[in-house]
Amino acid sequence: MGDHWGTLFRIESFGESHGPGIGVVISGCPANVPLDFDLIQQELNRRRPGQSRLTTKRQEADKVEYLSGIYSGKTTGSALTMIVYNTDAKSRSYEDFQDLYRPSHADFTYEAKYGIRDWRGGGRASARETIARVAAGAVAQQILREFYQITVNSWVSGIHSVRLPLTYGRYSREQIESNEVRCPEPKFAGQMIETILEAQRQGDSVGGYVSCRISNVPAGLGDPPFDKLEADLAKAMLSIPACRGFEIGSGFQAADYKGSTHNDPFVPAIRPAGEKQIGTNSNHSGGIQGGISNGEDILFRVVFKPTATIFHDQKTVDRSGAEAILKAKGRHDPCVVPRAVPIVDAMAALTILDHILRQEAYHRFQPGISSERTFSEPFRLKEYDHDTKQKQ
Amino acid sequence: MGDHWGTLFRIESFGESHGPGIGVVISGCPANVPLDFDLIQQELNRRRPGQSRLTTKRQEADKVEYLSGIYSGKTTGSALTMIVYNTDAKSRSYEDFQDLYRPSHADFTYEAKYGIRDWRGGGRASARETIARVAAGAVAQQILREFYQITVNSWVSGIHSVRLPLTYGRYSREQIESNEVRCPEPKFAGQMIETILEAQRQGDSVGGYVSCRISNVPAGLGDPPFDKLEADLAKAMLSIPACRGFEIGSGFQAADYKGSTHNDPFVPAIRPAGEKQIGTNSNHSGGIQGGISNGEDILFRVVFKPTATIFHDQKTVDRSGAEAILKAKGRHDPCVVPRAVPIVDAMAALTILDHILRQEAYHRFQPGISSERTFSEPFRLKEYDHDTKQKQ
Amino acid sequence: MGDHWGTLFRIESFGESHGPGIGVVISGCPANVPLDFDLIQQELNRRRPGQSRLTTKRQEADKVEYLSGIYSGKTTGSALTMIVYNTDAKSRSYEDFQDLYRPSHADFTYEAKYGIRDWRGGGRASARETIARVAAGAVAQQILREFYQITVNSWVSGIHSVRLPLTYGRYSREQIESNEVRCPEPKFAGQMIETILEAQRQGDSVGGYVSCRISNVPAGLGDPPFDKLEADLAKAMLSIPACRGFEIGSGFQAADYKGSTHNDPFVPAIRPAGEKQIGTNSNHSGGIQGGISNGEDILFRVVFKPTATIFHDQKTVDRSGAEAILKAKGRHDPCVVPRAVPIVDAMAALTILDHILRQEAYHRFQPGISSERTFSEPFRLKEYDHDTKQKQ
Amino acid sequence: MGDHWGTLFRIESFGESHGPGIGVVISGCPANVPLDFDLIQQELNRRRPGQSRLTTKRQEADKVEYLSGIYSGKTTGSALTMIVYNTDAKSRSYEDFQDLYRPSHADFTYEAKYGIRDWRGGGRASARETIARVAAGAVAQQILREFYQITVNSWVSGIHSVRLPLTYGRYSREQIESNEVRCPEPKFAGQMIETILEAQRQGDSVGGYVSCRISNVPAGLGDPPFDKLEADLAKAMLSIPACRGFEIGSGFQAADYKGSTHNDPFVPAIRPAGEKQIGTNSNHSGGIQGGISNGEDILFRVVFKPTATIFHDQKTVDRSGAEAILKAKGRHDPCVVPRAVPIVDAMAALTILDHILRQEAYHRFQPGISSERTFSEPFRLKEYDHDTKQKQ
Repeated sequence: MGDHWGTLFRIESFGESHGPGIGVVISGCPANVPLDFDLIQQELNRRRPGQSRLTTKRQEADKVEYLSGIYSGKTTGSALTMIVYNTDAKSRSYEDFQDLYRPSHADFTYEAKYGIRDWRGGGRASARETIARVAAGAVAQQILREFYQITVNSWVSGIHSVRLPLTYGRYSREQIESNEVRCPEPKFAGQMIETILEAQRQGDSVGGYVSCRISNVPAGLGDPPFDKLEADLAKAMLSIPACRGFEIGSGFQAADYKGSTHNDPFVPAIRPAGEKQIGTNSNHSGGIQGGISNGEDILFRVVFKPTATIFHDQKTVDRSGAEAILKAKGRHDPCVVPRAVPIVDAMAALTILDHILRQEAYHRFQPGISSERTFSEPFRLKEYDHDTKQKQ
Repeated sequence: MGDHWGTLFRIESFGESHGPGIGVVISGCPANVPLDFDLIQQELNRRRPGQSRLTTKRQEADKVEYLSGIYSGKTTGSALTMIVYNTDAKSRSYEDFQDLYRPSHADFTYEAKYGIRDWRGGGRASARETIARVAAGAVAQQILREFYQITVNSWVSGIHSVRLPLTYGRYSREQIESNEVRCPEPKFAGQMIETILEAQRQGDSVGGYVSCRISNVPAGLGDPPFDKLEADLAKAMLSIPACRGFEIGSGFQAADYKGSTHNDPFVPAIRPAGEKQIGTNSNHSGGIQGGISNGEDILFRVVFKPTATIFHDQKTVDRSGAEAILKAKGRHDPCVVPRAVPIVDAMAALTILDHILRQEAYHRFQPGISSERTFSEPFRLKEYDHDTKQKQ
Repeated sequence: MGDHWGTLFRIESFGESHGPGIGVVISGCPANVPLDFDLIQQELNRRRPGQSRLTTKRQEADKVEYLSGIYSGKTTGSALTMIVYNTDAKSRSYEDFQDLYRPSHADFTYEAKYGIRDWRGGGRASARETIARVAAGAVAQQILREFYQITVNSWVSGIHSVRLPLTYGRYSREQIESNEVRCPEPKFAGQMIETILEAQRQGDSVGGYVSCRISNVPAGLGDPPFDKLEADLAKAMLSIPACRGFEIGSGFQAADYKGSTHNDPFVPAIRPAGEKQIGTNSNHSGGIQGGISNGEDILFRVVFKPTATIFHDQKTVDRSGAEAILKAKGRHDPCVVPRAVPIVDAMAALTILDHILRQEAYHRFQPGISSERTFSEPFRLKEYDHDTKQKQ
Repeated sequence: MGDHWGTLFRIESFGESHGPGIGVVISGCPANVPLDFDLIQQELNRRRPGQSRLTTKRQEADKVEYLSGIYSGKTTGSALTMIVYNTDAKSRSYEDFQDLYRPSHADFTYEAKYGIRDWRGGGRASARETIARVAAGAVAQQILREFYQITVNSWVSGIHSVRLPLTYGRYSREQIESNEVRCPEPKFAGQMIETILEAQRQGDSVGGYVSCRISNVPAGLGDPPFDKLEADLAKAMLSIPACRGFEIGSGFQAADYKGSTHNDPFVPAIRPAGEKQIGTNSNHSGGIQGGISNGEDILFRVVFKPTATIFHDQKTVDRSGAEAILKAKGRHDPCVVPRAVPIVDAMAALTILDHILRQEAYHRFQPGISSERTFSEPFRLKEYDHDTKQKQ
């Protein structure tokens, strides 16, 4: 039941770590969209294991194949199916664990829920499941960019105790991809890489933060009271493996403010003709007010816990409930955060595109979504720094 | 479209601040449940305005009436409808604002979305909408407690800079209700109350934190990969007005740990016969692993921003896009956090009950949900303090 | 769970025959639509009991009141709630039946499902539930007519053995409303009325047929493979109390044809510029091919069984399973078919509008829905008569 | 958007006639179910082309492969994916048609909706799509039979003018499969076969009827007012390609009765202990009253139109709107009805199982579904014959 995401642009995910493959069906994909297949593969490459020394040594090309929904390079509007077949699945590494519950993994809970589990590589609980999200999200990102001029950019804003001074900088995809940790500030990137490598040397793991900026979002997206835009983004993010928290705009630091400094004053803004020329002079709201986008950039941050797999002996219990020691083996990431970046991009794009289509349904009655929005930004605030609570 | 919540235990909310009333339809409510109507009213009383000097002076009894779904004091299984008629709606206070966009309110975004808005008291965007959640949540809480022995308890864990030392204490509903700020630690409660009254004197507002503990949750709730239990809780919370962030278990502090200290070791646990006797020796996971409850208490925290309405003059623009000054009037809370507590309780209960029914659907195939779970707690960790990163 | 209908234009229905009232929440209603409240009441008047000598003597004005979603006479886009309070509910008539299962009523099945039932007047199973459909359908019909020039017209095409020679004539709402049985052919109307009155005199009941023509439907509505337009129409109709069958176009007579005579040849058609100028030269398809509307009128027919309540003694069993005799009392229709006409109109309108919004969501990618469609009809076939299998 | 079916036992279908394959994802499949893979293949064999002289000469083994959701021969509760790769797809036959709209096919409507179509073999509109339904339905049938003792049996009850005297006989799967037309009455089967072969010789096509009996259904399934069991069955059936009508129980003949003869009297019934011992003495209701199953067999009938592809020249128009002649080519069935039987079985099973799980969700509150129901049938009516309106 929990395998799908979205209302109009819907995805259905399937597959296990050590089964034949991981796939996704997009239902409700707009028709007539010419797809850039290289870009889809490129997003999967950003997610794939073995891409750098920071990631697991499992080597998978993660090459995507298309099973339906495309004709002559365009979407047909019918269910679009993509699959990545598994090629480097080594179940043997997991055999020793099949009767043990690995701490802070999903072994115990899957078995508690279903009464059965595919223990090979985590089965359905494996982070390989996110291939489905990234592939579908790559399609969504193309549609957002080409038809709505909306871009989604996430980056690593913290690894363990190394954190960017600015939570919400303004970075290009190229800056983000300029190093293997996906932190667009080179100096901090170096420290983050060193932190990860040090954890790896210790057989340990670390977590961190991903910040996300969605630019050029039209005002009017989100469906209160329950499908508020930030609510759907929060669900999108917390559904990503290892994610432990989500905050929008000022987030957990909102409590540090008083209303008089937290409110975002409205100001006249220079925008293309036909758009209401109103912006805000700060963005503590993170681009969403009352559950609906206000035309400012959407800014949110998520946190990922340290990878549960470590190379220390750990106390646990076995399926009979008896105490046991887990001796770690296999191939794992000392830190999932750099590989989480394309997943955050994907889930954000899937959420925004779905809400755009929901809003488009009413275009004859309600203010439309201009396809030619290119906001000028004189009104945009100086960067907001959540960590120091200082305007720069 | 965004007016409903839930899959099996579904609620549909309706109503505006200054319309005839606020109501809710519960569809998929279990039949044959004897309702304690006083308890439902009591939850609404915890939410209602005018309950203490900390809240808005709008005085509403918020008396709930029943329009359908009940026969002889029991639920019939058919749509159960509750309504609270509005009685103290004073639209006049808002007339001066009808052409202004109040900063960090939803005036601008509703108009950007719908091209029309009911400006009286915030209309649909008013926090009076949460009456629907609290009424339905009160039904859910009764069912959880009576049929599944599950309790939900939220409390104020921070107001502005006053914060509890322990994020996740263990408090009874009586302790929480022992003061008007709903902070179960009397010493901190006093400081919080003073903080709110001081903000009120300044014509300003403050935000804060609500912590929540859901006790006695059976293992097995949650539907990965997208309807993970923490994902649905995150959406539930971010859909509450003024909520800006959500974290589960160690949350945003997860990045401070390494895997070796963050993992929750499994330990044998003493539970009633028939249950798998396994627990964890710490609870950084917040009771959820891989998106599925593991039988430990669910622990999460949310943040609320300072109320957007303040009694200072504020810069803004009017509907024509021209600069303007907003002079505040009306009746508002200097801090919504104490009144948010029953709303957090409600949304948590709605989410948990829905996932229980989803799991119950498979009871013939998968491990069942015992109705007689009363966990002993020898294995439970000492309280975990997120703020100091110390085990107490 | 089964209380809602629709995906974007969604309705949630609530209420019982002898409870406070029957209501409906429309979620996803387009904003900015000026409503003609008289027309909504008028549709309810077409459904209300006591409107003629052919119907139950229960007298209810069925006056609709508005609880939310309207501001200054226009829809706001927020949940729109309507309610009809019950005023002439006489539970006493039902007291004698409360331990008996009335044959072919829902008493037994509701109790088998829920373990409890509100026996007063059928409770939730009462046809008074259809007030919700008719009220919401009246809103949908207004939107279809004003924004899309689409009209829905149903009429009685048969009562017991009296049947119209043409299944799918072309009738105006005025012709249909010209008599109390809602048959637009006066000669047959007279015979139908006599048939109903004769059944009434015998203490018996009769059923019949309703035909429906939806005119000016744009091509492109319907979502194969599962949400085909005829599939959703079929569900819409079979959800109406007492409905026992649905057929589209040639329907059950399709088997009488061979492919060579059943196929609808495409022909060039004169339509407004911008539309693909293609029609069909017959309409056995009933306006839907492959689950998607083709621009021709949609034609379908439904059948209603004789009312289950009759004024004869009937054998049955009581709640203990013992044999018993049911002696009929109360106020009922000898034939529900004339009052079913506005319900068929309503459900058809709700279904079509929902599919329009679903298609509008993709307007930027796929062929749009012109708001100025006024098909000329040179290509339209002569009326098709399903009963005689003759072209007229 | 229209690619999925079901609420708890959900299927998502994908694939085109001449793409890589046709597949289905089952989400919400109960865990721990040992699957008989031969039976799944056997259902696909009943559907596959080339199985007899009555069907298209397209030869496909339609061998099903499993992509996810199974471990050690059992379902895991995670998304279960099946695919049939296309092997005998000959696009060339369709090249001549790519600019023509084939009468009563979906070419025109798909293009009107999506602005693009995959013309090869009907693309997504091809009846090969039903592979997804049959594969998923085979899983549902196993679960129904093994866990709930429910069987679904459909058969051909009419081909063109050859019709069985009894609409709802009682036949075993073996009787139904005893001949290539799937009519369990040998004498009529012979006439039906001859009718189809004659149509084939004429280059023409014929349609017909499928009757369905679902046995041993527990009382209590169905969710009024909108998800009535017959409403969901009607949608299920009308979503099958070429289906033009659905009727439950007495169906379109209900109008021939009066209430006094149409009502189904309740009678005491001998059933296993623990069940309410009540049945009905006739079954005009078709096993469903008020939208909820009453414990009697569910009886419904559907009609299929003659295949649209014929081997006659046909008038049509091309994509420019100009008149044209379609000269038929390719490989097609002169009659789809025998191959529709396993599809009707599949859709019926998917619908019933979904409603069972919906009801099971409330098992702690409402009367349960016994897993050991084996109704004795002394109370069952003699066969009911809709065609002659006679009790036999």
